[in-house]
Amino acid sequence: MTAVTTEFVDELARGVRLGEVRAIARAITLVESREPARLELLARLYAHTGKAFKVGLTGAPGAGKSTLTYQLLPRLKARGYRVGVLAVDPTSPFSGGAILGDRIRFDEALEGVYIRSLASRGSIGGLSRGVPPAVRVLEAAGYDLVVIETVGAGQLQVDVRFVADTVVLTLVPEAGDVVQAMKAGIIEIADVYVVNKADREGATRMRLDLRNALELGGKPKGWNPPIVLTEALYGKGVDELVEFIEEHKQYQQQTGAWRTRRLQQVEWELQSMVHDALEQQAHSVVQSLFSESARARVLDGVENPYPALQAWLAGE
Amino acid sequence: MTAVTTEFVDELARGVRLGEVRAIARAITLVESREPARLELLARLYAHTGKAFKVGLTGAPGAGKSTLTYQLLPRLKARGYRVGVLAVDPTSPFSGGAILGDRIRFDEALEGVYIRSLASRGSIGGLSRGVPPAVRVLEAAGYDLVVIETVGAGQLQVDVRFVADTVVLTLVPEAGDVVQAMKAGIIEIADVYVVNKADREGATRMRLDLRNALELGGKPKGWNPPIVLTEALYGKGVDELVEFIEEHKQYQQQTGAWRTRRLQQVEWELQSMVHDALEQQAHSVVQSLFSESARARVLDGVENPYPALQAWLAGE
Repeated sequence: MTAVTTEFVDELARGVRLGEVRAIARAITLVESREPARLELLARLYAHTGKAFKVGLTGAPGAGKSTLTYQLLPRLKARGYRVGVLAVDPTSPFSGGAILGDRIRFDEALEGVYIRSLASRGSIGGLSRGVPPAVRVLEAAGYDLVVIETVGAGQLQVDVRFVADTVVLTLVPEAGDVVQAMKAGIIEIADVYVVNKADREGATRMRLDLRNALELGGKPKGWNPPIVLTEALYGKGVDELVEFIEEHKQYQQQTGAWRTRRLQQVEWELQSMVHDALEQQAHSVVQSLFSESARARVLDGVENPYPALQAWLAGE
Repeated sequence: MTAVTTEFVDELARGVRLGEVRAIARAITLVESREPARLELLARLYAHTGKAFKVGLTGAPGAGKSTLTYQLLPRLKARGYRVGVLAVDPTSPFSGGAILGDRIRFDEALEGVYIRSLASRGSIGGLSRGVPPAVRVLEAAGYDLVVIETVGAGQLQVDVRFVADTVVLTLVPEAGDVVQAMKAGIIEIADVYVVNKADREGATRMRLDLRNALELGGKPKGWNPPIVLTEALYGKGVDELVEFIEEHKQYQQQTGAWRTRRLQQVEWELQSMVHDALEQQAHSVVQSLFSESARARVLDGVENPYPALQAWLAGE
């Protein structure tokens, strides 16, 4: 994308507001980019954003998140939601990452659902900073529920809290999974837990382990995260899951939790935009501090790079 | 850590050079921190760094990386290496993350080995930027082989290339694992592949799948990544793994690959230090652009935050 004109941004904003799929796609591409015009578009859309219910779906690759999402879609639509899906998961069939299997059939479950994959951008990794602005585009286009599918261990899964109102963590009944999740510190981030592939051995046991793990520090005072057994492939347990997702939304809205959480989301969004701009600088700072030959000398042990970094930091 | 004096840095540097375990520990804590004095310490140690062979061990939680590391240690020591271990994996027993099981016994395998866990720092996540400076501390202390244990999907596993000379990816023979890894784009990052828990069904098949996957684009021209079957728990296959790790080192040293890769490492290291400093700014920039009440108004839909961001970006 080169020179983005004000006319183009105007047209895009209009198309998004009309819910035109092509405009939405281009708008998300723009807000995902580092084009200065992305802020112009977001400024134009802002008044129509901030209202969607954001459901984060996370879990290890192979846990069945995409199948679960696929099963959730018709049920969410039946409740009157206009649904968008943002897949940050590179292994998701929604994100076009399917190489061998897992192809999602295009059928009525997907009808009217806007699906989009986002790159998990940045050399340092982490949750895609494109998520909050992409959510705003979908909100401006009239979507009022956005499913955000993310994958990963540790940080990636933790970050999903900062973009979603309700986080669903999907596990599979395999030995050690709960233990591993606990060790990685990701067990406490979810609002609703799913033990998928519940026909497999150990599912009931896993639910018990999980319940014990969650209540290690005593019964929670506020929301007590439910644990749902599902067989996503056959749609089993998915109705119950939808119930709990709705319940968590209502719980938050009735308490102060909704606002507190959403304030954190705003903060994360602003911070990630600033961070992103600063990150762009890192490359050019390094280039200006260390030429190619200087970097080679650093490697050869003949140019100590730290004094230059110190000076740069001090002079900043 | 508060006011770090030049005397303290001097003492630390001296202790590190003498290989004192307590000094090494404190030095790593310092270089992991954002204390300005960390650069002073690194400047002091620089002349004695850059020589260690860095082996990255990556793979999903539960693949057996820590057991494998534990088995590698005596074999690497037998080859004359002084070995350090940096565990960025929050699920590693080495990093003290073990809650229920997986406790590593302290015995002769660990004797003389410096083991340290590093936080995967930063609100945006990713590989710990503390790795390159921690490696330098270990190098200055006389360690000439550093095992870097990392976990995670996607980006985390990709980043390990930028800190390790040889990357070992550990997989387990479970259905779909190769497929999942391929989809996540992490299959091509390794220099040596391990199919651990090779007594399980499907191990041989997995090796075949993996071989096919790796040669999808034709036989590689340079290094052809070997695939080793191991049963880490019983030490089976670990001798062979050590052979391949050494072989990869020699291969790189005989070709230009060693230097090219290490130049990338230097670049990543410098960039991550600059990035880290800039990241610290993000928080204060947001605070100065948006007060707490301004952020609340953003949430309430009555303060459009994008013009302020645009102005900040333009004014930078």
